[in-house]
Amino acid sequence: MRERLDRQIAFLNEADKLKSVTRATELCDNSRYENSAEHSWHLTLYALVLADQAGPGVEIDRVIKMLILHDLVEIDAGDNPIFGDVDVAAVQAQEKVAADRIFGILPNDLRDDLRVIWEEFEAAATPTAQFAKSLDRFQPPMQNLQSGGGSWVDYDVTEKMIADRVGSKIAIGAPTLWDYAKGKITAFFEARAKT
Amino acid sequence: MRERLDRQIAFLNEADKLKSVTRATELCDNSRYENSAEHSWHLTLYALVLADQAGPGVEIDRVIKMLILHDLVEIDAGDNPIFGDVDVAAVQAQEKVAADRIFGILPNDLRDDLRVIWEEFEAAATPTAQFAKSLDRFQPPMQNLQSGGGSWVDYDVTEKMIADRVGSKIAIGAPTLWDYAKGKITAFFEARAKT
Repeated sequence: MRERLDRQIAFLNEADKLKSVTRATELCDNSRYENSAEHSWHLTLYALVLADQAGPGVEIDRVIKMLILHDLVEIDAGDNPIFGDVDVAAVQAQEKVAADRIFGILPNDLRDDLRVIWEEFEAAATPTAQFAKSLDRFQPPMQNLQSGGGSWVDYDVTEKMIADRVGSKIAIGAPTLWDYAKGKITAFFEARAKT
Repeated sequence: MRERLDRQIAFLNEADKLKSVTRATELCDNSRYENSAEHSWHLTLYALVLADQAGPGVEIDRVIKMLILHDLVEIDAGDNPIFGDVDVAAVQAQEKVAADRIFGILPNDLRDDLRVIWEEFEAAATPTAQFAKSLDRFQPPMQNLQSGGGSWVDYDVTEKMIADRVGSKIAIGAPTLWDYAKGKITAFFEARAKT
């Protein structure tokens, strides 16, 4: 029991490092960049509050578990901004190695249980994972709209790039949320063009 | 539908402010103080990883929901360090006003649903709330042990104060976790006395 607890706590201590992984998105008040731990918390709240947007077959409690776990691999692999120039296969390989190491700190039964949840999220093949992924893509534009553009400004992003890289993904698991975001994004870029 | 979504998003944007509420606990690597949003995320991970410590009648999925929501009132009421000198009744009154305002941003059905979860946590009368509370008290000592003392050093805390203010609360919902922490805390203070 004591050895088991040592491994559980070692994992929880290691997870603390996610609070030091910086993302490309800024806080709504523009004061600083967001970290992946607080982002993960915010997404679990998105899941609670936007559960009525989930389609048939989505298990919200499992969505929340996926969102708690989804970025842990960034402790080793770092965050890859969605508008950055990224080698997707290389990132996936890095994240797999990270998952082996980080989940491997846990007792074997827990390692396997949590790994399965993370793999389901990554594969994005179930309604539950697709809804979780949609929320993960939906939150950054909501913050950018508040912070005056955020990563859109930093990465010189066009409305079309947002539709292609973000909107297409949100629409898979949460089409109404993409419709909602699209209208706000269009209004933002129109207002910006006038200034 | 659109007006409903506007209120849901307004709440989620307001919640972003929890990332700017600073706690008395430092990160494990001692680099800075923790904020209440990343703390809330960390606690949801504690619930996932330490679910085997939950006693009969504890619903882990509801524990996680409580931990997602539990600190939102700090957006208005601030964080009250456990070793600080606090007027408990005054804080509770402040937090009630904060809950009215913050949950009140939501559509009424969601406002009521989430408020009930937060009230259950606050009342600490069910096994589910007691386990959630125990995790909330268990995480700071785990981080202090890593960061070289953290809030124990800042607030000049003794081992007895930890047992009285923290241990007694952890023991209600998670007695084995308090046994575990107690041993580590004793070893920490013994080592510190020798230096």
